[in-house]
Amino acid sequence: MQIKKEDKKDRILKSAEKLFAEKGYANVSISEIAKDAKVGKGTIYVYFSSKEEILDAVALRIFEEFVDGARYALEMSKNLKEFLELLAEKLSKDVENRSKILAMFHRERLKDRSKYREITSEYRKVFMAAYERYRDEFKIPFDEMFAFMRGIFMSAYTMADNITEESIKIFLKKILLCFFDVQKDMDCGSGAS
Amino acid sequence: MQIKKEDKKDRILKSAEKLFAEKGYANVSISEIAKDAKVGKGTIYVYFSSKEEILDAVALRIFEEFVDGARYALEMSKNLKEFLELLAEKLSKDVENRSKILAMFHRERLKDRSKYREITSEYRKVFMAAYERYRDEFKIPFDEMFAFMRGIFMSAYTMADNITEESIKIFLKKILLCFFDVQKDMDCGSGAS
Repeated sequence: MQIKKEDKKDRILKSAEKLFAEKGYANVSISEIAKDAKVGKGTIYVYFSSKEEILDAVALRIFEEFVDGARYALEMSKNLKEFLELLAEKLSKDVENRSKILAMFHRERLKDRSKYREITSEYRKVFMAAYERYRDEFKIPFDEMFAFMRGIFMSAYTMADNITEESIKIFLKKILLCFFDVQKDMDCGSGAS
Repeated sequence: MQIKKEDKKDRILKSAEKLFAEKGYANVSISEIAKDAKVGKGTIYVYFSSKEEILDAVALRIFEEFVDGARYALEMSKNLKEFLELLAEKLSKDVENRSKILAMFHRERLKDRSKYREITSEYRKVFMAAYERYRDEFKIPFDEMFAFMRGIFMSAYTMADNITEESIKIFLKKILLCFFDVQKDMDCGSGAS
């Protein structure tokens, strides 16, 4: 039975993600990734032309999982509170490894983030759909809400060095529901500036 | 020598803050606060008509310290990076106790937050001044920047249950400088909605 191409690519990405998180980006070679993924080194070059490209693809997959998680939360929720709870659940998944990879991506690939920009625009679309669907429950403009959310999620991922996935999940639930309560006070200063 | 009125009020607030943080809001009586502050119970009622009012005043003082901290960071900084570093320094001060008090305030006083709104507008003014001063270094609109910052600071204060003041300071420095780097990507989705 022949192994499908997509399976091979997927195995390469899974091995790369695991090795990057364990050993750090600089300490992983393409040969090691090939060995762990049980493919030839030449096979890796069929899919990726460099280690940078592998990191891009690994990070992109994580971002895609965020978008899928947000989409799932939107599909399964009946109100804003449920949406936020499901979001906390989905986005805290595997946060310890994911945060390491995203920090690497941020550090190594700051100058070439075109794929990040694409996926961020997908993420934004899902939040826009949530904003439209639960319109009555949001008290602040969309761009502010989205910036606030990004501040929270970026915080959770930065914190992941210090606390566990379970603590992050609890943190996210707490703060998203807190956001839900206090957002009506957020634009209070608008008249004062 | 007669004790000045302001000293007494200050002592009451300091004792209340300490006792609330140690024992929880519900477990502290006005008599205990009086005893700890070395004033008569009647003296407390000269300044405050209820325990709720004491909590309001304690929380207000913390918010004022935030505003003072942000103002100090703005005065002492020569560029956005320095402003953010000083901000991280100032706003992580005494975060363990402060976060407890603010959580109490949030829980107990959600329905009467007029004083919170006033002070938030002061806080907003300082950030607006920073935004004007370092205009060239900010890539996103003010309201988005401010919402993003609030997401980060609210996160730090929510996290304070789990990690130490020192970790929060490191976290804040890291994430504020990260914000400084990535803000140029933040509005990337604007065309996509």
